[in-house]
Amino acid sequence: MFPECGSCDPGSIPGRCPFFKMKLMRAKGTKDINPEEKLKRDYVVSTLKKIFELYGFVPLETPILERYETLSAKFAAGDESDALKETFKLKDQGGRVLGLRYDLTVPLGRFVAMNPQLKMPFKRYQIGKAFRDGPIEKGRVREFWQCDVDTIGVKSMKSDAEILSLVKDAFKALKLDVVIKVNNRKILDSILDYLKIKNKDTVMVSVDKLDKIGVNEVKKELKSKGVNKIDELIKIISVKGSNKDKIKKLDFLDNKEGVDEIKELISYFNDFEFDLSLVRGLSYYTGTVFEVVLKDGKLKCSVAGGGRYDDMIGNFMGKNEIAAVGIAFGLEPIADVVKFDEKTNVKVYCIPIGCYDEALKIVNELRKNGINTDIDLLSKNISKNLDYANKKGIPYVLFIGENELKLGKYKLKDMVSGKEEMLSVKDVVNKLV
Amino acid sequence: MFPECGSCDPGSIPGRCPFFKMKLMRAKGTKDINPEEKLKRDYVVSTLKKIFELYGFVPLETPILERYETLSAKFAAGDESDALKETFKLKDQGGRVLGLRYDLTVPLGRFVAMNPQLKMPFKRYQIGKAFRDGPIEKGRVREFWQCDVDTIGVKSMKSDAEILSLVKDAFKALKLDVVIKVNNRKILDSILDYLKIKNKDTVMVSVDKLDKIGVNEVKKELKSKGVNKIDELIKIISVKGSNKDKIKKLDFLDNKEGVDEIKELISYFNDFEFDLSLVRGLSYYTGTVFEVVLKDGKLKCSVAGGGRYDDMIGNFMGKNEIAAVGIAFGLEPIADVVKFDEKTNVKVYCIPIGCYDEALKIVNELRKNGINTDIDLLSKNISKNLDYANKKGIPYVLFIGENELKLGKYKLKDMVSGKEEMLSVKDVVNKLV
Repeated sequence: MFPECGSCDPGSIPGRCPFFKMKLMRAKGTKDINPEEKLKRDYVVSTLKKIFELYGFVPLETPILERYETLSAKFAAGDESDALKETFKLKDQGGRVLGLRYDLTVPLGRFVAMNPQLKMPFKRYQIGKAFRDGPIEKGRVREFWQCDVDTIGVKSMKSDAEILSLVKDAFKALKLDVVIKVNNRKILDSILDYLKIKNKDTVMVSVDKLDKIGVNEVKKELKSKGVNKIDELIKIISVKGSNKDKIKKLDFLDNKEGVDEIKELISYFNDFEFDLSLVRGLSYYTGTVFEVVLKDGKLKCSVAGGGRYDDMIGNFMGKNEIAAVGIAFGLEPIADVVKFDEKTNVKVYCIPIGCYDEALKIVNELRKNGINTDIDLLSKNISKNLDYANKKGIPYVLFIGENELKLGKYKLKDMVSGKEEMLSVKDVVNKLV
Repeated sequence: MFPECGSCDPGSIPGRCPFFKMKLMRAKGTKDINPEEKLKRDYVVSTLKKIFELYGFVPLETPILERYETLSAKFAAGDESDALKETFKLKDQGGRVLGLRYDLTVPLGRFVAMNPQLKMPFKRYQIGKAFRDGPIEKGRVREFWQCDVDTIGVKSMKSDAEILSLVKDAFKALKLDVVIKVNNRKILDSILDYLKIKNKDTVMVSVDKLDKIGVNEVKKELKSKGVNKIDELIKIISVKGSNKDKIKKLDFLDNKEGVDEIKELISYFNDFEFDLSLVRGLSYYTGTVFEVVLKDGKLKCSVAGGGRYDDMIGNFMGKNEIAAVGIAFGLEPIADVVKFDEKTNVKVYCIPIGCYDEALKIVNELRKNGINTDIDLLSKNISKNLDYANKKGIPYVLFIGENELKLGKYKLKDMVSGKEEMLSVKDVVNKLV
């Protein structure tokens, strides 16, 4: 009746089959974030959130589950995008086809389209998980956090500039040295028009790989796609110099809309690198695109990316264009490089020596005063308790025994310096608060 | 080639079929949390997080995706549980069967089992989403937040008491008047033994419904299940009086383990109602169970619930018992009743009158000083700008025009009182910071 272990259906229920042995594993491509790592991530998120709010963005939360129809709309990530190909698809018990969101932008588009009463501009931030069932390369995970800011309803480059200024402040606050790269899809578009290159979407997909696979591989790929004037294209988009120099060199273009937008952007904010080869993978971008990379090149991937998508929301509504621009900060790559030293959020660990009830009163007093306090719940001996506090990285230990209770003074040990002091509860509070 | 709109496969891609009209909707049973509501939820979460940390709990993050095998383990939620029946099931592209977690407890069990090097006790908190594909009753959602604290590795009632004390402090901080109900599965168990009632699991499922469907319906259900001595059972578990009275009335039980645990618990923390009829739905509980309800009865559901599950982790490891106890706070019901008045996190809205660039400098100065500042990006007129600030609930508006720039003083309007003042940037900072 039951197959032997190993040939079981992976969905079969352990305990039913006498041969079944539970495999203790996570879902492939997912990670557990242990307390030390989670504290670091909380620090990154709270730093970003603070900056988002300083810039006047308000929080929104859309669900993780979206209708697959929404996620796969032609004007969303695009049929050719990895994002759509990697979407986790499922059905609810009513047979409705759903997907786990692959980003926070498409659900935002759906939200704005469903709420026409929203006062514009609508400047929102969202910090949430997104999912992609992609190949597991070094460190790539199938479940990851994005921290997004988007401004809806502003066509002017003032909003693109505001977001770039926010990006600069955010990485400054995180003490990370970055380069902000900016391009405009309209410029790429008019370059392809100028060179009379067709199949723009597929050409852009190849150009997007310049950083990853290098110029020779990109040329090969374009050749295999039957693209002409490959060398001219690569020459134009590889132009060097200051932002102003690069703009001057684009004088030959017939359609100046993209160049004019970059000029307007520069009039508000100029602390970026105009990079004519920057594309960004998602097909919903219509104008400005941004990408932020570490200056020291330690990370192969970007730490933030985004752009303008003026068509998506209008398409959702079946109405005219609604301007939109935004950026997503990737929590995983940022947390990988940010400096953060705290091992624990616990400030003091209390060791009762045969008087738990009395010690608990003191612990509660410390907690009331805002001090994160832990207490031995296992009646361990002193050396095991010290080892525990040490391993967990707790900076202080407080001993509470009969003698201390009589004195009204307790031994506080600094676990880093080893220094010990006899202090009243009030003094402990003043020292640790 | 394409079916007409309405008979399309719900998963088909809009834009492909000429008859297809995009339905703009969320996945069934999900909600968008708008900025005002999200600010309230952020307040609840940060209040809980602060209390969790005061009690020495450290943060952990396990993934939303788990192997279905983990979630459906016999010793997890239990085959008969709604949680398992309502689990969203899906496959990754490698054909692995996964599920969206239905709670944070089973994944914690899996995490602890996979990390035998963890120093005990392990006191962790986790704030994250869980998913259940259940019926949509009033307000029930399929994607919801749980805020959990759990202590692993402590058999003593000290940890149950610590969690109850934390619960008390948490609801005090949230200014909600609650009753903490406590029972012990071992007591229920010995009552059923005493009455020689078999099929304990199915009896407990019925008893669990006492609050929801009332005593008569429960009696009917038990009768239909062929249970004997129903009236005796109901009489015993409906006993009234103080906690100590109730304990006295259980003297007839042969197995005193549960009663002894309640006695030990009371020696550390007594601010709860010992409720012999409390069961809790999940089958993994082994001892203490808790449930927290509002005192005024405004909510039909509980605001927090949990208990002791000493078997689960050991079962995951195929080893001996590992003690564990915890509680989950439900963000949705708490946010529904908590008082919170802030409409926005934006403090001041800046209206440039024909001098955006200069205004932007002042805005950046305010932001540098930690003041959440927004600025008009659409060059609206003054009355439209005031309307915008008013609708968004922004408390202050700052006007920046040519005259103000010459004077070095700017008009700050209090949007609640209507009062206006001419202030320097420094004064604005001092007033708003």
